[in-house]
This record gives sequence, C-alpha cells and structure tokens, in this order.
Amino acid sequence: MARITPISGFPEWSPAQRAVEQQVLDELRRVFELHGFASIETRAVEPVEQLLRKGEIDKEVYGVRRLAAADEGAASELALHFDLTVPFARYVLENAGTLQFPFRRYQIQKVWRGERPQEGRYREFAQADIDVVDRDSLPFGYEVELPLVMAEAFAGLRALGLPEMTIRVNNRRLAEGFYLGLGLDDPAAVLRAVDKLDKAGPDAVRRELVAAGATDEQASKCLALAGIRSTGTGFVDEVRALGSSHELLDQGLDELATVVAAAEKRSPGALVADLSIARGLDYYTGTVYETTMAGYEQHGSACSGGRYDALASDGRTTYPGVGISFGVTRVLGLLFARGLTATRSVPTCVLVAVTSDDLRDRAEQVATDLRRRGVPALVSPSSDKFGKQIRFADRRGIPFVWFCGAAEDGGDQVKDLRSGDQVDADPSTWSPPPADLRPGVRLG
Amino acid sequence: MARITPISGFPEWSPAQRAVEQQVLDELRRVFELHGFASIETRAVEPVEQLLRKGEIDKEVYGVRRLAAADEGAASELALHFDLTVPFARYVLENAGTLQFPFRRYQIQKVWRGERPQEGRYREFAQADIDVVDRDSLPFGYEVELPLVMAEAFAGLRALGLPEMTIRVNNRRLAEGFYLGLGLDDPAAVLRAVDKLDKAGPDAVRRELVAAGATDEQASKCLALAGIRSTGTGFVDEVRALGSSHELLDQGLDELATVVAAAEKRSPGALVADLSIARGLDYYTGTVYETTMAGYEQHGSACSGGRYDALASDGRTTYPGVGISFGVTRVLGLLFARGLTATRSVPTCVLVAVTSDDLRDRAEQVATDLRRRGVPALVSPSSDKFGKQIRFADRRGIPFVWFCGAAEDGGDQVKDLRSGDQVDADPSTWSPPPADLRPGVRLG
Repeated sequence: MARITPISGFPEWSPAQRAVEQQVLDELRRVFELHGFASIETRAVEPVEQLLRKGEIDKEVYGVRRLAAADEGAASELALHFDLTVPFARYVLENAGTLQFPFRRYQIQKVWRGERPQEGRYREFAQADIDVVDRDSLPFGYEVELPLVMAEAFAGLRALGLPEMTIRVNNRRLAEGFYLGLGLDDPAAVLRAVDKLDKAGPDAVRRELVAAGATDEQASKCLALAGIRSTGTGFVDEVRALGSSHELLDQGLDELATVVAAAEKRSPGALVADLSIARGLDYYTGTVYETTMAGYEQHGSACSGGRYDALASDGRTTYPGVGISFGVTRVLGLLFARGLTATRSVPTCVLVAVTSDDLRDRAEQVATDLRRRGVPALVSPSSDKFGKQIRFADRRGIPFVWFCGAAEDGGDQVKDLRSGDQVDADPSTWSPPPADLRPGVRLG
Repeated sequence: MARITPISGFPEWSPAQRAVEQQVLDELRRVFELHGFASIETRAVEPVEQLLRKGEIDKEVYGVRRLAAADEGAASELALHFDLTVPFARYVLENAGTLQFPFRRYQIQKVWRGERPQEGRYREFAQADIDVVDRDSLPFGYEVELPLVMAEAFAGLRALGLPEMTIRVNNRRLAEGFYLGLGLDDPAAVLRAVDKLDKAGPDAVRRELVAAGATDEQASKCLALAGIRSTGTGFVDEVRALGSSHELLDQGLDELATVVAAAEKRSPGALVADLSIARGLDYYTGTVYETTMAGYEQHGSACSGGRYDALASDGRTTYPGVGISFGVTRVLGLLFARGLTATRSVPTCVLVAVTSDDLRDRAEQVATDLRRRGVPALVSPSSDKFGKQIRFADRRGIPFVWFCGAAEDGGDQVKDLRSGDQVDADPSTWSPPPADLRPGVRLG
C-alpha cells in the first residue's frame, strides 16, 4: 500500500462508533416509517448544470469523471450531490407520473461538499431528510407535522444517550409581513442582513440595514423582532407590541402560533419560537426550522429545513413541499470527539469459549442455538485456557462468555463479565437481558 | 429544472423497489451481525494512486475533484472506490493499532465503475461484503465459515421471495497443484486461460493452452478438471482419476473437501464444488467462491470472493483474509426487471380515515396509539367520503383502513382491504398480523 493517511474532511468511524451511528440511523428510520415516510435513495451524481443553478455553491461541488476520459479535455458533466433536497426535487419531477401525492419520503445518504474542513464540518457526510411534497398546493398542516415527527425521532436519540435537541421555528411570512408593515419594501434584503446576526452581531446588521435604506427606528424594530423567543405562543403579543401591521404578518403569526401550540400539546419543550431564524437559502416560503443541540449551541444548526413552494417545477406543474434535514455525521462527529462510543466494538453478545479442541463441535452447536433465537454469538477462534477466553471477550466488550460442560451435571454455564456471575444455562432457552442484545451507547 | 433524464448506469429505484432492497439489506445485516461481523463504512474516495495499483482497472475509475480546482489544471488526486475490498485493506492498515484481530467486518456501500452499462451491470451499485482478516496468519477454518454465513443469508433472502443461490467453490491450490503435477510450470497462465472458459468456450481455451506450451493431453486434462462439479465430495475421486499428483494438489483437495463436507452438514445444497471457478483477480491464494442465481446463470456471479494472503501489508506485517462480496444492486436490478416489487409503496400499515373534519383529532389519537405499539399509521390528509379514503389506501397498497366511530357502540372499526372484512377494533389493543407490519415482497 502506497499512502495510508486519513483524507481531511472524509471521516471514518471505528467499529464502536459505527455501532452508535447504526443505532442512530435505526431510530431515525423507525420513527420516519411509523409516520408513513417511504425510503428512497437517489444516485450520488447529478448533471453539473443542475447543481450549479443555485449560484453561490459552485465552488463547493465535486466534479466526477472517468479518469480515462480526462485526456479528452472535456469538462466534468457529472458532480456529486451536495445535499439531498436538489436530487429529491429532480426525482419527484422525473417520477411525477408514477408517484402518489402527497408523497412522503425519507432519505439517508452521504453528500459531498468541497468546503474547508473544521470541527463538525466535513467534506463527506450523511444527512437524514424527511419531506412531504404535493402537486400544485400543499396544506399548511404539514408545516406543523414535520417538526413533530423529527422531535419524536430526537426523543428516541435522547433515550439512546444523545444530548437534547431543540427545534427553533420561525415563519418567513411573519418576518416579511413585519418588514413590509414597517414600510421596508425589500424584505429579502432585510432577511439576508438579519441572517448574519449570529456571526456578525447586531451592530453590523444594523449598519447593513441602514445602508440599505432603513431608518434607525426601523432597524431597531427588525433587531427587536429577531430577539424574540418563546416556548409557547407568548411571542405573538411581543411581536404585536412592536407595532407593525400587515396581512402577511397576521398569517405568519397565526401559522407560527399553530406550530408552537401543537408542539406544546404533543411534544412539550421540543419546539420553541425563535424569531431570529432566517435560513440562508431563499427558496423557503413559510415555516422555517433550525435545531440546537444542548451543549453545542455554538456549532450551529444540527437539523434545518422549511416550507418551499417552487423548488420543484416542470413549468406546467409545481410541487410545493416542506422538509427537514438532520446532519447525522455532523452531530456524531461532535459527540465522538467528546467520547461518545458503544459498550462493545462487535455485535457479538456471547463468546462461546473453546477450552479444548474436542469441545469445538459442541460450541458450534451452542452458537447455532443462540443465533436461532436472535442472539449474536461467536465461537472462539482458538482453543485456549479459561483466562484467555475471558480476555478475548473483554477486549471487544462482549458481555457474556459461554462454557460448554462447565456445570456440575455436565451442562453449560454462562458468565456475565461485568458482574462476574457465572450460572448454569441451556443454549436452547437462555437469553441475555434485551438491552444486551445490541451494543449500548455510552459517553467515554 | 434544466434537464430531467436518467443517467445511464446510475439506477434509482421506485419507493416499492426500495422497500424490497431495504428488506434484503436488513436480512443480510441480521445474519452478518448474528455471526459477529461488525459494520464499518469507508469514505467514498481513495487516493488515485492507491486505486491504480491494480493496473487493469484504471479506465473504469471515476476521478473526483472540486470544480473550483479544475481551473488549476492539476490531475485528480482522489477517485471513487470501485469495490469495498481495496478500501477495507487500507482501513485495516490505517487502524491496525486499534482493531482487534481476527477482525470480522461487514460493509454495505455503493461503489462506482465507469464501465459500459448493460443489463445487470451498473456504474453505481451497492455491494455487501463480509471479510475476516488476521495478523500474520489466518486459520483455514474461515474459508469454511464465510460461505456458510453467506449461505445462511441467502436462505433468508429465499424466504423473502428471491431465487435460490448456489455458491460454487474451488481452490487455487488444487488447480495450481494439478497443473504443476501435470508438468505445466506456469499455473497462473493456465488459470488465466481456464478463466475464459465461460466466455470463449473450450476450443479457444485449448488453443491458448497449447500456444502457451501445453501438450494436447495436458490441455485435455486441464479442461477435464474444469468440467468437474459435485454437490458432495465426489469430486475428489474424479480429480484423482485424471492422474496428476502434487503436494499442493493434495492440500487443495483436502481443503475443498472440508468446505463442501461442512456445507453438506450445515446447509445442504447451498454449496457445490465447481472446478471451473478461477476468479480473475490474482490476489486469491486458497478457496475461491462464485455464486449463481437460479434462472440467471448466464448473468455471471452474484456473489464472489476468496482467500487472499497479501492484499493488506505494510511491509512489516501482513494481514491475510478471506472475504465474499454480494452484488446487491446487480441482483435486484435483474429481479426488478422481471417484476419483483413490494406489496405496498409506503411503510404505512394503517390509514386512519377522516370522514369528517370533527373526527381529525380522534384520528390523530388513534394513529398515535398504533405507532406506540410499532404499527406504521397515517392519518388521511383530507376529510373525504368513505370511498375516497379506501381509494387513497388502495393506490398505495396500504392493507388496513381505520374508521373512527364506525362501530354500533360508537367505537372504531378496521377494514382489511384485501378480504373486505371490517371488524370492531380498539386502537390501544388491535394489531395487524405480523407479516403485514412491513411491505411484503412479491413478483409482478
């Protein structure tokens, strides 16, 4: 092998870390499927011209071409997708004739971006997206439903041992209506300025707003709006108190209050109204979502999305949708760096010891019996003494070691390496505690 | 959207086909984990020079580079992996200090090859690999174990409705020893010629052997060897009857007989000895495997691998291994083309009907109750008459429709759309038959 080095920005997990990732992905899938989201996968590549339509991101795109074609001097025609939303919109248009609408899908795949790698930012990373799209029009109700589905998945991740996630919700109509009601007639420009609040701070945002024609009072009210947070619908009165008034503002306040009230009822604490959320991408048209992970607030949003009306359109028909994307690799990368790992590096729950060669066939039969009832089992690869068998299991975190013929009556025994308890056991009936069937998740 | 067309060789499945693929992948994972294989994933890219070491395949490799870097005129430094074996060997070397040996891993990922697309051949496709590697030396027993693990997975796929798979086994030592025993002193050249038997036919292989210096009798014996098949260990006498004799031949016959005998005992019919199997790649050193799918024999091997001694080495330490790779996309592409699909296009098992708006809250509660017990449920997005609710479910293949308040006592009823039966049901206790919890697999 010529060069064995990590490639910056292309993370690879250890087997124990991967065991954590699998459980996270399983939990996301479980919740998404319970709510009727169908899985799809799209190809890794899209035509370059498709991906460059969004202007700003061309520098981050990885082109793909056969090395043999490189001599021909032509430019890349294909590129790796940089998110799952653009490929999904293309998939919907390509298959519109056979899909059933409203179409609910989830998609868990790697994406690639040529950005400068840094903590929690990768060049290759997995995302888990849910979206609902419909033809021509999409009821507002989905803007309420989708964050609640994601919140249910987060509750599952919390039970696994991941930190608490809080989905922060805002509404584009609310913000636009507020700006229009103040007399600011380019709400998109105001949104772009306010979107920089976290990074640039209020003074810079104020300067940008004033430079764009806002009065100091108008700028103050925009900043005051972005400062509003509430766990319930209390934000409504706070916004009203700022004195703007517009039809779009009314609609936005109403919608955001509906989302937050539904969350208070079904997942208390999972969602909060946060009127600073703007989302950089300009295709959002209604509710928008960002997510902070407790203890990692400064690392930006772990899960984002919103309502879009014109992302997918073939000129005749438009497919409005709402979607949320969870940054799986990003979140796990941060947590792995703080020591999150699995209780064992293998799926094996029971090591069947082979303390002498004439017991190997019997050991194989024990493992077969255990597997038949869903217990991952491995026969020790080498015949060795008691202590070496224990060490083999211990190094991998395998919780149980099985000893054939160790019982007084010639039957078997099984030892729990954590407690040291060793008890008589029958391979056709013994089962581990359900929590031991798969690796657990733990910190450090 | 500018250009909405499929890209040749980059398949995308419908939601129903993807549901089949998920069950296939779940079954593979279930069996691999029961046998103690840990999951890993490697990054999609490797340094180009790493991938080109194997000479022949450079034309098939996809280079990857940031579009913004293209102006700089440098050649691609990264390329998409074309299999999972080369990245795995690199992963083992890179992590040798922390991995536990023998290291058992499975890996299910997409790979990319720039080959001309044709039926059952793709440019982007998923593979499912299992390998065991050890440090310095690897006991022969793994060459027996690995095909049996794969055979157990195939039995699971058969239960899902996929065709029968037969693993065909040969042994490099057997063939090499046989050729050496005949007096042919370049066994690798003979293997390369015999490997063309399927495509070129016996006359062409004979000509190639004679051109390389074999007598007509030697060529005849090589062809006779390649013609030997047996479901048991009968091949041993047939090989002996051809009259070659060599120490390597003895070892190879012994090893192959051990593999076949173990399979006869543990998975009758799953493995056969097939002395024509050569495997093109020259890194195999012991047992080699290919697999035919019943009804698709002419499409080549669905699952291949073998024992390798020198694939991973850092100069000081060598990591011998044995591995098998199942061509998931390839097999599914063939079966999808013949009509294999799922009984429904969504995970949803129960559609909770909303026949009037005042029942929506009650319907939401029913769906929540069902999901709490693991039943995928969807509340109908629109309030509509009985018939429209049925059609909504029917078009997606959802088997059950739930009607709130439809029972005489004001309780609920559930209708099985396949039998037409409609019975009283309580959302806190009713469960569908277990087979209906997820989409079934069916032909056409």
